[in-house]
Amino acid sequence: MPAGSFFIFSLGTPDALESIVESTPDLSRFAINQITTPAWSLPQAIDGYTRHGIHGIAVWRQFLEDYGVAAARKHLRSADMWVASLCTSEWLNVGSPDERARAIDVNRRLLDAAAEIGAPCLMMVVGGLPQQDKDLAGQRERVREALHALLPHARATGVKLGLEPLHPMYAGDRSVLNTIKAANDLCDELGEGAALVPDVYHCWWDPEFEAQLRRAGPERIATFHYCDWLVPTRNLRDRGMVGDGVIDIARVRSWLDDIGYDGCFELEIFSELDWWQRDPDETVAVAVQRCVPFVHARPTPR
Amino acid sequence: MPAGSFFIFSLGTPDALESIVESTPDLSRFAINQITTPAWSLPQAIDGYTRHGIHGIAVWRQFLEDYGVAAARKHLRSADMWVASLCTSEWLNVGSPDERARAIDVNRRLLDAAAEIGAPCLMMVVGGLPQQDKDLAGQRERVREALHALLPHARATGVKLGLEPLHPMYAGDRSVLNTIKAANDLCDELGEGAALVPDVYHCWWDPEFEAQLRRAGPERIATFHYCDWLVPTRNLRDRGMVGDGVIDIARVRSWLDDIGYDGCFELEIFSELDWWQRDPDETVAVAVQRCVPFVHARPTPR
Repeated sequence: MPAGSFFIFSLGTPDALESIVESTPDLSRFAINQITTPAWSLPQAIDGYTRHGIHGIAVWRQFLEDYGVAAARKHLRSADMWVASLCTSEWLNVGSPDERARAIDVNRRLLDAAAEIGAPCLMMVVGGLPQQDKDLAGQRERVREALHALLPHARATGVKLGLEPLHPMYAGDRSVLNTIKAANDLCDELGEGAALVPDVYHCWWDPEFEAQLRRAGPERIATFHYCDWLVPTRNLRDRGMVGDGVIDIARVRSWLDDIGYDGCFELEIFSELDWWQRDPDETVAVAVQRCVPFVHARPTPR
Repeated sequence: MPAGSFFIFSLGTPDALESIVESTPDLSRFAINQITTPAWSLPQAIDGYTRHGIHGIAVWRQFLEDYGVAAARKHLRSADMWVASLCTSEWLNVGSPDERARAIDVNRRLLDAAAEIGAPCLMMVVGGLPQQDKDLAGQRERVREALHALLPHARATGVKLGLEPLHPMYAGDRSVLNTIKAANDLCDELGEGAALVPDVYHCWWDPEFEAQLRRAGPERIATFHYCDWLVPTRNLRDRGMVGDGVIDIARVRSWLDDIGYDGCFELEIFSELDWWQRDPDETVAVAVQRCVPFVHARPTPR
């Protein structure tokens, strides 16, 4: 049973997880991010993941809006489903101060929604460069200011700002936060109310990945994303199922065990050309099979 | 007239460059990398670039092999063409020590060829992970050892090992050297015979880009690559013409002026979907037009 902070807002109960018997795969720390199965609505995902023995979910904003926050809350509770995170924030890649203020306000409402459904963090995907703007350092500074502006509401709601560094190939159009070091620096600066969300897909190449995980320590990590890097990678939404790529996930898991991380492992796959085209039931079945070696509750014995 | 180290092995003469009159665009520090116009053979590229007033070229290995080193040397000399670099090294992403030794030996022959054609550096694209190997840190260490093994021959030939950090999205299949910091660390360690080759395409996202250029200083930079990052980027060979993307090249140029860099500016574009499909004469004409503001010999006045 994980004791990580992700569990604080969980709607599931410890008993529900402890009832998993030894002979079945230990999925108590495992969540699937809805974007992995975008053909399913939120109620379909809750029921689908549950069918496969999974009680953790990262809820995607659009699907939550479709279903409604109250209905989602009720359904999650009745399914004994805990929530790893709410994905994602409103992007901040807007040109004017007014637009930025509006985006910050949308994020305040998303923090409220995250609190409602028991999500311990709102995934902050901060957006790339505003149109017609090449000032990368300037945009990073504006993002920093926006995070400071959001912090009081994050603290008030008890929902953390989940800072996920995105792969440098997304710096132009998805996020100007591109290294785990930069995310750790922001967490240092923001203090309570901010958390780190590392993803092997975004960080695996980074010579500092291990050192920055050690710097973060277990308490700072809100949820940890699994995925894989395919060779070849055909486009920028061609992420791989765990095991199909070149990332040494066993080694990354050993680092996490080493620092005492006891939180969630969340599978998140953007895959236009493969997994998004399959029956979600197949995707989830394969996901369980592939992730079992890397999501079990107890640290790997040495 | 640039006085950078790239000129030491040049086959062009200072007079040839000084004959460019003030009213014409100042292209004296400008080179085009042959991969930008892959429809042209080496003799076609020499003649083509010359037609557009360009006297710098980065020679691509396969085209050099097609033409022959002696013929290339003679043609470059008669065309008053200086060579920015020879691209690229034999990759080191091989599984066995024997294969690695063979790859290192191929690179020794490439250093010889580079010396023959007056290239001041051999571009070290070191390869990604060997097949079936997920040990990224281990492969980085093997690359480090291979560079040490190559160093005496680099020093003997006077051709530098041009360490080009490649974008993290190429860590799996093209190069495990992915940050300018890592390349600078290697240059520190290797000393004479090693040089840095920064490329805006590979480094623009890096929060440390400017600081690492300052750390490198002007002498360490063998040649400097221009390109642009497109939004959207459609695949991993979808690099953009200078001006078509989101990189603030004027700012990068100002950093280079600031540290006193007086070497080459080399345009290198991999573009399966666009520039590789055009008439190379069109590509070169547009390249000149777009690059003129960023390649002139004198630092930008402030």
